[in-house]
Amino acid sequence: MTQTNLANATLFDLKTGLSKEEKTKQRHLSDMTKMFYDTKALQEEMEAGHDALVYEYYDLDLPKTDGDIQYGTSIVYPGTVGDEYYMTKGHYHEVLETGEVYFCISGEGYLLMENPEGEWEIEKFVPGRAVHVPPRYAHRSINTGKEPLVTFFAFRADAGHDYGTIEAKGFRKLVVERDGKPEIIDNPKWQK
Amino acid sequence: MTQTNLANATLFDLKTGLSKEEKTKQRHLSDMTKMFYDTKALQEEMEAGHDALVYEYYDLDLPKTDGDIQYGTSIVYPGTVGDEYYMTKGHYHEVLETGEVYFCISGEGYLLMENPEGEWEIEKFVPGRAVHVPPRYAHRSINTGKEPLVTFFAFRADAGHDYGTIEAKGFRKLVVERDGKPEIIDNPKWQK
Repeated sequence: MTQTNLANATLFDLKTGLSKEEKTKQRHLSDMTKMFYDTKALQEEMEAGHDALVYEYYDLDLPKTDGDIQYGTSIVYPGTVGDEYYMTKGHYHEVLETGEVYFCISGEGYLLMENPEGEWEIEKFVPGRAVHVPPRYAHRSINTGKEPLVTFFAFRADAGHDYGTIEAKGFRKLVVERDGKPEIIDNPKWQK
Repeated sequence: MTQTNLANATLFDLKTGLSKEEKTKQRHLSDMTKMFYDTKALQEEMEAGHDALVYEYYDLDLPKTDGDIQYGTSIVYPGTVGDEYYMTKGHYHEVLETGEVYFCISGEGYLLMENPEGEWEIEKFVPGRAVHVPPRYAHRSINTGKEPLVTFFAFRADAGHDYGTIEAKGFRKLVVERDGKPEIIDNPKWQK
């Protein structure tokens, strides 16, 4: 009856989403020059020296098998570039036929999804709302509120991330602020 | 550019773990007569007419593929049978080589784990602590606190549940209250 040490545990702050035990990966405006559609507004921010932190997340060192679950938190900060809300880059999984679950624990916003066939979906994040991304759907978190949007995520640990497709083509839809409210529009810069 | 409706979302209360949108599966003392080691104490509770709710959880109707993630919450209520804390039955996955992640959002307790080789592990639950169960490990949530122990769980949707093995053999270790504190002991009734 041997005690092993294979389980992995991490303590997160339920309000900020941050953990003192691990380091986040951070994405600033300068990492996302290809993502926001209003490149002029982004340029102006950068020239004014405001390379704001847009989001951060945990990429924990866990076994990458198809039987393990990769987990962590993602924190998208409030803000806009032009009228487009702060968001994550968004990604497909390299193993395209895998989904993911996001559990919102603080803040508010949306999870925007689309598949290679151009079908899309959007789900609202409010504290306590869990959203299951179906397999084959790229997904991006968007903060439309005034507080950090904090989600806990879990996916098959071998799924991998394909950021390149979205970086090159963009999402077909965007979420922007119009008259003080979120509105879904077609992405004027979307590339086939 | 068609909008589809494949994503699934559920709103949970972050304090109670319950959702108004779905029904839980409930486990009362009478469902767990084989699980607690002090059968006499259990008998007395039952004869006194106290068929208490020990725990409840969500078994949402999601696609059961190896690319989907099954998610939900589990709520273990505070209490003891004799000196053994309220707990879940515990289970192996039918697809043994799959793990699971539990994210504690309220309450406190432990996640007890063991594999078919008899190796075991235990991890503490406090609010904000996520525990990754390694593949091959049966797992049971145990509430050692005064409040409901609420966890959000996520696992590969094809993993399935094997409750029978634990029901027949039990876990090799138990968590009991001694001098007002949790203590891990050998299960006197464990069957090889």
